[in-house]
Amino acid sequence: MLASERFDSIPVSHARQFLEPGPVVLLTTRHAGRDNVMTVGWHQVLEFTPSIISCVVSRGCRSFDMLRASGQCVLNVPTSDMLDAVVRVGNSSGDEVDKFAAFGLERAQAHDVDAAVLPQCHAHLECRLRDDRAVERYNLFILEVTHISARPSPKEPEYLHYSGDGVFMLSGKRVSRRKLFRPEMLGF
Amino acid sequence: MLASERFDSIPVSHARQFLEPGPVVLLTTRHAGRDNVMTVGWHQVLEFTPSIISCVVSRGCRSFDMLRASGQCVLNVPTSDMLDAVVRVGNSSGDEVDKFAAFGLERAQAHDVDAAVLPQCHAHLECRLRDDRAVERYNLFILEVTHISARPSPKEPEYLHYSGDGVFMLSGKRVSRRKLFRPEMLGF
Repeated sequence: MLASERFDSIPVSHARQFLEPGPVVLLTTRHAGRDNVMTVGWHQVLEFTPSIISCVVSRGCRSFDMLRASGQCVLNVPTSDMLDAVVRVGNSSGDEVDKFAAFGLERAQAHDVDAAVLPQCHAHLECRLRDDRAVERYNLFILEVTHISARPSPKEPEYLHYSGDGVFMLSGKRVSRRKLFRPEMLGF
Repeated sequence: MLASERFDSIPVSHARQFLEPGPVVLLTTRHAGRDNVMTVGWHQVLEFTPSIISCVVSRGCRSFDMLRASGQCVLNVPTSDMLDAVVRVGNSSGDEVDKFAAFGLERAQAHDVDAAVLPQCHAHLECRLRDDRAVERYNLFILEVTHISARPSPKEPEYLHYSGDGVFMLSGKRVSRRKLFRPEMLGF
């Protein structure tokens, strides 16, 4: 991680905090000494403990082959100040351009996996491929989150949520309804 | 649908428009003449055509058994004015309470499947169970969207996005970056 940056470690069982609201993420992979990054909007949480998530990576993308080969990746969660980079990454191919250099994305070493993390992003979910049984049929990778780091602030980051046709929704205000929850439903 | 309500039919390939931004949904099922509803935050898009999505329904919930038995459901997308009902549905069981009556949820007949739609919601994605191979391992249901209806307004609905621990994020403002997209990436 960059020396100037401070990130907190977050329990892996809290992956929902970052993914369940539905932001697009920047997925980084490394294989044979090369890094790649792609924009991913199709992901979900599957389980708290172990911390399991899934995401679709399109066949034909370089990242698809790299994730299959390395079995590792990072889901980096960008904020709205990174909008143009997110769009440009999603509309280019690692075969044609060095997306890190072209779009100003810094890289740092991950904690647990062999892939880049993007320190400009708010959070980084490091993952290992757990189950590839749904890859052939749906391009669906089932991943185990093995480490999470996140900036301690802001408390209410403005993520980017893609709604199709070139339009993004930005995270809005937060509201608590903790008082209406059963106690066992809280804490994660 | 209620006579007083007007809903548009939306191409099923546009399911991403409603699900990809990451809102919680109210999942309705019907089996043996009984309706049920539960709150679901763990879902994603898998494919445009056919229109395939996935969602986790916790084992032990009545909805889990009903979805397995009927093979049909509706994902109803609520807006922020329904926040308290969404939370109360998510913190109660159909074994203990009639959630529709207790939380003021109206019901109407779906277009394609045998399950209730909730006309107070902004959109309704009617689905049929397509693949149950990931149910045993992850409680993950792979569904095909067979019909979508949605209110024509507002154009920028305020959905509810759950971020854990009793806190919701509301959909914020929309921003377009259509000019940065390759033409073949637009239109859906």
